[in-house]
Amino acid sequence: MIRAAVVGAAGYIGGELLRLLVGHPQVEIVAAVSRTLRGRPVDSIHPNLRGRTRLTFSSYDQLGHPDVLFLATPHRETMQRMPAYLDSARVVIDLSGDFRLHDTDVYEDYYGTPHEAPGLIGSFVPGIPEFHRDRLRAADRISVPGCMATAGLLSLVPLARAGLVRGDITVDARTGSSGSGAKAGSENLHAERSGALRVFAPTRHRHEAEIAQATGHTIHMTATGIEAVRGVQLLSRASLADGVDERAIRSTYRSWYGDEPFVRVVAARRGMHRFPDAKILSGSNYCDVGFALDRGASTVTVIAALDNLVKGGAGNAVQCMNVRFGEPEERGLEFTGLHPN
Amino acid sequence: MIRAAVVGAAGYIGGELLRLLVGHPQVEIVAAVSRTLRGRPVDSIHPNLRGRTRLTFSSYDQLGHPDVLFLATPHRETMQRMPAYLDSARVVIDLSGDFRLHDTDVYEDYYGTPHEAPGLIGSFVPGIPEFHRDRLRAADRISVPGCMATAGLLSLVPLARAGLVRGDITVDARTGSSGSGAKAGSENLHAERSGALRVFAPTRHRHEAEIAQATGHTIHMTATGIEAVRGVQLLSRASLADGVDERAIRSTYRSWYGDEPFVRVVAARRGMHRFPDAKILSGSNYCDVGFALDRGASTVTVIAALDNLVKGGAGNAVQCMNVRFGEPEERGLEFTGLHPN
Amino acid sequence: MIRAAVVGAAGYIGGELLRLLVGHPQVEIVAAVSRTLRGRPVDSIHPNLRGRTRLTFSSYDQLGHPDVLFLATPHRETMQRMPAYLDSARVVIDLSGDFRLHDTDVYEDYYGTPHEAPGLIGSFVPGIPEFHRDRLRAADRISVPGCMATAGLLSLVPLARAGLVRGDITVDARTGSSGSGAKAGSENLHAERSGALRVFAPTRHRHEAEIAQATGHTIHMTATGIEAVRGVQLLSRASLADGVDERAIRSTYRSWYGDEPFVRVVAARRGMHRFPDAKILSGSNYCDVGFALDRGASTVTVIAALDNLVKGGAGNAVQCMNVRFGEPEERGLEFTGLHPN
Amino acid sequence: MIRAAVVGAAGYIGGELLRLLVGHPQVEIVAAVSRTLRGRPVDSIHPNLRGRTRLTFSSYDQLGHPDVLFLATPHRETMQRMPAYLDSARVVIDLSGDFRLHDTDVYEDYYGTPHEAPGLIGSFVPGIPEFHRDRLRAADRISVPGCMATAGLLSLVPLARAGLVRGDITVDARTGSSGSGAKAGSENLHAERSGALRVFAPTRHRHEAEIAQATGHTIHMTATGIEAVRGVQLLSRASLADGVDERAIRSTYRSWYGDEPFVRVVAARRGMHRFPDAKILSGSNYCDVGFALDRGASTVTVIAALDNLVKGGAGNAVQCMNVRFGEPEERGLEFTGLHPN
Repeated sequence: MIRAAVVGAAGYIGGELLRLLVGHPQVEIVAAVSRTLRGRPVDSIHPNLRGRTRLTFSSYDQLGHPDVLFLATPHRETMQRMPAYLDSARVVIDLSGDFRLHDTDVYEDYYGTPHEAPGLIGSFVPGIPEFHRDRLRAADRISVPGCMATAGLLSLVPLARAGLVRGDITVDARTGSSGSGAKAGSENLHAERSGALRVFAPTRHRHEAEIAQATGHTIHMTATGIEAVRGVQLLSRASLADGVDERAIRSTYRSWYGDEPFVRVVAARRGMHRFPDAKILSGSNYCDVGFALDRGASTVTVIAALDNLVKGGAGNAVQCMNVRFGEPEERGLEFTGLHPN
Repeated sequence: MIRAAVVGAAGYIGGELLRLLVGHPQVEIVAAVSRTLRGRPVDSIHPNLRGRTRLTFSSYDQLGHPDVLFLATPHRETMQRMPAYLDSARVVIDLSGDFRLHDTDVYEDYYGTPHEAPGLIGSFVPGIPEFHRDRLRAADRISVPGCMATAGLLSLVPLARAGLVRGDITVDARTGSSGSGAKAGSENLHAERSGALRVFAPTRHRHEAEIAQATGHTIHMTATGIEAVRGVQLLSRASLADGVDERAIRSTYRSWYGDEPFVRVVAARRGMHRFPDAKILSGSNYCDVGFALDRGASTVTVIAALDNLVKGGAGNAVQCMNVRFGEPEERGLEFTGLHPN
Repeated sequence: MIRAAVVGAAGYIGGELLRLLVGHPQVEIVAAVSRTLRGRPVDSIHPNLRGRTRLTFSSYDQLGHPDVLFLATPHRETMQRMPAYLDSARVVIDLSGDFRLHDTDVYEDYYGTPHEAPGLIGSFVPGIPEFHRDRLRAADRISVPGCMATAGLLSLVPLARAGLVRGDITVDARTGSSGSGAKAGSENLHAERSGALRVFAPTRHRHEAEIAQATGHTIHMTATGIEAVRGVQLLSRASLADGVDERAIRSTYRSWYGDEPFVRVVAARRGMHRFPDAKILSGSNYCDVGFALDRGASTVTVIAALDNLVKGGAGNAVQCMNVRFGEPEERGLEFTGLHPN
Repeated sequence: MIRAAVVGAAGYIGGELLRLLVGHPQVEIVAAVSRTLRGRPVDSIHPNLRGRTRLTFSSYDQLGHPDVLFLATPHRETMQRMPAYLDSARVVIDLSGDFRLHDTDVYEDYYGTPHEAPGLIGSFVPGIPEFHRDRLRAADRISVPGCMATAGLLSLVPLARAGLVRGDITVDARTGSSGSGAKAGSENLHAERSGALRVFAPTRHRHEAEIAQATGHTIHMTATGIEAVRGVQLLSRASLADGVDERAIRSTYRSWYGDEPFVRVVAARRGMHRFPDAKILSGSNYCDVGFALDRGASTVTVIAALDNLVKGGAGNAVQCMNVRFGEPEERGLEFTGLHPN
């Protein structure tokens, strides 16, 4: 059994980690740390776990020495505590933003605060099995990308690496309200957020930097809050290199993802399910990727969708754990998603 | 011109009062009082008013002496400040719960605190033009009923007064999230509230007492938060007195509401719009009332719907103001509502 | 392996059966019958199954002789074809309304058409493991109750059997749009149905008859379409027998459901998750049951929630299959549901 | 009084025209033409009009000779009947797509059918008072732009005409379900459309051609169906010409729209209402326009929002009628929109 602990267990990502770990046959949860809820039953905050666990929240000092430690904690606080976390657990899987960017200047630029543990950045392996599976098998420090970044990386990196696109890439990201976390703020009130089309980051969203770092292209990304609790969809546009046609793109995606358990290429000729839609992905670990060429094949529109709390966070982290601990990669992540939903 | 002021102007009911008063050709808004936002433009909080008003929020001491003062303030605080409000304005229209119940024991029972201005209760006229129009023409103190209570009163009082129903009445009330107000609380976060079917008051909701007081029947009311920002729908059930048939109910409603501008009897034989639905009432001052008899005519199911912020609050208050100041009753309340919406 | 077939596989209940059966380790799907879609891939209609199955729809004549046949077909058509179905499969699990009611007069009364296979009704065992587990172990003909009926049966039968309630019971049922099925009708258009509070059955809903049959009480049920795709919530009210208190109700539910894998008693003192809410049940096979007593303990309000396509249909049917074929009862039904969602 | 008629009165745009015309003090509706509903009350299809009109639907032959004829009819059918329409009414305001594009090759390219009345195209004045007010005062033939096109034109034309942007413009358009009209189709079922992020036109949406025609720039537009009944939001990106800064853009918009009653420039420094959001525009005739510069001012992100049935259709058409008939331009269009909503 893998002895797992979660810090930040009362939040939405933390709760999703607990949901997946409770259902994982090879995992024992040894601690669900919450700063404020010590002693309270986990299912009083995450009611979907009723009848599935008798776990209660614990405090930092009860963390002990788990085999794997998942960090669902705010940026800055995470890098400050990281040395202690590294001492306590053999494997640390970080879902914060602190160890995703390799360049500390870029970090400071996007996060507005200097990096406080620059020496540790290089020791983290990016938590993307589709790109770094071999390194993850032996990684003791894993940094899971952001929810929108994951959709951007999985949909754009293959095209960039293959040289199929050129120049700047524009990214329109749409995200549900769970991405804002469980903290109450008037802008997240149902009456304000319901039905909103809120452009909360017209430029300079932090996940933009992750996509730029991985693709090597300049990214112009916007982020809009849409009416959904879960779900991220990215719609990206890029100019095609000379002579690139639909077949070239399709075969590139196939060569990258043909054997991947959690990336599906979705680009049908017709029907209402032609392209990736987060609507059918809630709870699943899939990232669906699709594309369409403009007539004349001068530009490609790339569409990617995922559940921000699963493949965009907790699910991706559990997939990394499976790789690291030699478990079947799909274990605990079998849920298909619902239709209709 | 009627010089109007609103206290509690930053809240949802307050904002709706401002929306209606800004559009009222015979009203001048002399003060929009907010405890915390003095000096800030009203449209920074109520963005729908952009381009419609240059009004800024003011503090209590800037209240002055308006012709009419609307109170969109919390219960308890309202009765404590009422003597001062009564000094400042000729006509006070209170939208809080403090002066709706005549019996101070019932008040204490439902609000959990003793009434602090019992001597004033009797001087308030209930803000329901359909029932108290003549008294309202001369009323200087008006107490507007609660949003769910308004739907209950308009749909059940005619049947109760006419003796068409007997015994206890069950009321299943559904309400949107704006009824919880603009205060941030984790239970009102979009991620928690979206799509919820939350039975937040299985018994003893405060509006139950208002319906019981007006009908003279014992009311068993539940309140459920449903997926909507605006909108209240009440589904009530009562036993019919002997010999009461559909015609008797229809003619009773017609005799009460045939000439009313804002109550529509909606009980069609078929179609998707057979019964009242808050979906098409957002922004309008209508309360739609419908009903259906069980086969055998032993019980009647009564359905009522309204916009909790309009006929359930601000709109009803403006209607009362129109009556009191001799304005055409529909003035400033002409919006029909939208379909589809 | 259990060789399973589904008729009506293109509908929402049919698709949910396929989702659960595809994920069931002991089931092989031998046919997914659709009148109109023969030869088309199942995942072109049910996109959540992409990458999970290569199954294509087949026609009736390709049904063969499965071990278990699930019928997700319309009433009337189902009883007409039933003799043929019974010949083709060892075990038939019917999700239509045709074999739920024992009294053919009641059937004709609620369905508006005479029963065409009265001789077969008695041979069907109700598909409710919580009530009929022993009979289901040997049952070759199983009739799964309606979605709202399931919530009503599981929440009310224990109280009725124990004599804790008396007299008529009122039931307010709320249901999502997937209950209307995949057939296009203008009343189910998104623009018409979104945000609706549509009382589509003020009286005489068909599921009322199932609840009356099982409880022995007169049921006054209303059905309202609310804003949700999945989810049913029933709010029922009954008078308590003399001397019945909260403990008596709680212990009754505990004795019935304490060991049940898919019924949870949810009745917390406080918090936003006090009572059953379908919001967190999408995709799960749970039926959550809760209750609250009016002060004075004269009446009880019972709340039940489930996913209409899972415990209210396909999941319940799979649970019956597990019982019938000696599989662990939770197999293939492990999904916990999501929070937030 | 202006004697007005509507053809296509049973649809969503037609219903919105009726809502606005019923509330217009200087308009008399002389005919509401529906191919299929002759004789039925208008409020049986548009329930928001209950108590506001006794109008019934009529047939083509009852059209008579209105002062103004609004056409809310499908493309192709509209151009085929146009000669007859022009004979029947003094002023024709067309809301179809048939007379928006000046180049018949472009029309055929985007609509997939040759234009059947090319000789009439030049006689139509574009129905955009902000750009063509003077011509509209005397126009007898007016062609109202598409809903998404209107948002694109109002937000991009000023920047294009002033030479502030250069090169291709990308447009990410999001639209609610009412844009699909009242026709039932399985892709518009609530269960399928609810919560969808459906990229239904990754390239080549028809409104793209209108924006290209008016701006002179190559437009790369995508269209995504989002969870809303009403509402369009466009998020466009363009490269800035050398030396263009925020002030230049702001002053350009101000010079175009400073005196316009229905275009508001919304670009706040902070807060949840920084940028245009259709959420607060339902029922209003506003088009809100905002923008943000990328750091370094190399590109501008332009955001525009409106209600597709009002400023994106019926409201814009009524505004054109007011201009044409010398009415105050805001008459009948005073509704501010709701917050929260």
